[in-house]
Amino acid sequence: MSQNKKKAIVLLSGGLDSMVAAAIAREQGYDIVALTIDYNQRHKIELQSAIRIAEKLEVSEHIILPLDLSRFGGSALTDDIDVPKSGVQPGAGNEIPVTYVPARNLIFLSLTLGLAEARDARDIFIGVNALDYSGYPDCRPEFIEGFERLADLATKAGDQGSGFTIQTPLQYMTKADIAKEAQRLDIDPALSWTCYDPAEGDLHCGLCESCRLRKKGFEEAGIADPTGYAVTS
Amino acid sequence: MSQNKKKAIVLLSGGLDSMVAAAIAREQGYDIVALTIDYNQRHKIELQSAIRIAEKLEVSEHIILPLDLSRFGGSALTDDIDVPKSGVQPGAGNEIPVTYVPARNLIFLSLTLGLAEARDARDIFIGVNALDYSGYPDCRPEFIEGFERLADLATKAGDQGSGFTIQTPLQYMTKADIAKEAQRLDIDPALSWTCYDPAEGDLHCGLCESCRLRKKGFEEAGIADPTGYAVTS
Repeated sequence: MSQNKKKAIVLLSGGLDSMVAAAIAREQGYDIVALTIDYNQRHKIELQSAIRIAEKLEVSEHIILPLDLSRFGGSALTDDIDVPKSGVQPGAGNEIPVTYVPARNLIFLSLTLGLAEARDARDIFIGVNALDYSGYPDCRPEFIEGFERLADLATKAGDQGSGFTIQTPLQYMTKADIAKEAQRLDIDPALSWTCYDPAEGDLHCGLCESCRLRKKGFEEAGIADPTGYAVTS
Repeated sequence: MSQNKKKAIVLLSGGLDSMVAAAIAREQGYDIVALTIDYNQRHKIELQSAIRIAEKLEVSEHIILPLDLSRFGGSALTDDIDVPKSGVQPGAGNEIPVTYVPARNLIFLSLTLGLAEARDARDIFIGVNALDYSGYPDCRPEFIEGFERLADLATKAGDQGSGFTIQTPLQYMTKADIAKEAQRLDIDPALSWTCYDPAEGDLHCGLCESCRLRKKGFEEAGIADPTGYAVTS
């Protein structure tokens, strides 16, 4: 890595979206510091994906930060609540699903901001998108814009006039667009992990909302899906 | 504790300000859930104060959440950087001191918001104040107001029209006012911990910016200061 490159912090969950966001940051020439939050999610396997992706993209630093949000509860992703497997379209009827983790993206972006300020980076990449998503409130453009404004009030750097930019290159992409973007950027989607409720043998369940969105994306893009699903129908 | 009481989350550091904010919440009849962040601060002793205060105020739940911000660095409170001991007035000349922890209050408020949503609480108490403080940007009213607006965009509850209120009862108090408030509420200031750089024998150093503000507050209030300082001049 060159010392002259501009630095960016990338919030890297290990999912397809954050992988593509990170690859875009790399393409744009950023020196990448990746931040992964180990929030005691039931799909801990995504942390291994985050490590693989960070290695593949040759990030300059990868911090995996433990933050046990299961202490708070309130989500199927951290609690002993069943992850829905029905065919209901995720986010349909403006319902926010039980896989919503209270204030997760705000918590994660705040941590990313703290790291950005500490590393003297001014660009933050996050793979949110507001098209093929699960209806979470903290993926919407209004939330991201609000966060960007608040970041300048919340920090020493912002206070001193050197503000932060939240880069959301996937904001208006469909899952199919994201699958195509992975192909264009030549990064293997099999590195990433999407499933909320992994099946035995480290397979994607193929039924949860997150798997359904992933499968649909590859289908619509006409790209072979390298994911190992327990249920493929 | 009654099941009928309104619930509030109180961000309880263990310092004088958060103790008084918590006591005000209790006086207002809230059922208190206290949240303390163990961010690997060098003054870990404040966690013991938080436990003592939570017990004294008979909170219904006290979560001490580990979150190792020393992984990020960038602050004298988490790194091996000297805590300033000079007599320089904290916050003088609009300088933000090295004890600033990047985006700390945003990170902590975001966590408090997540806990509030998970516990179905809508009120959040934080003991920030913008008079006798250290010039940190994330203690200012503009920041708190911005956070309150963002909280409604960031959460399921906010999205569904049931928004959050950030209660900052100390916002416009001097340290002297806060010392008087502790007396009025009959809560012993000796329960709280202020010092950034504890001296041997679990004494407050008496010299860091935080100790100086504390001492000055009791002096100006004309209230006996129960704090054990290593240096009292």
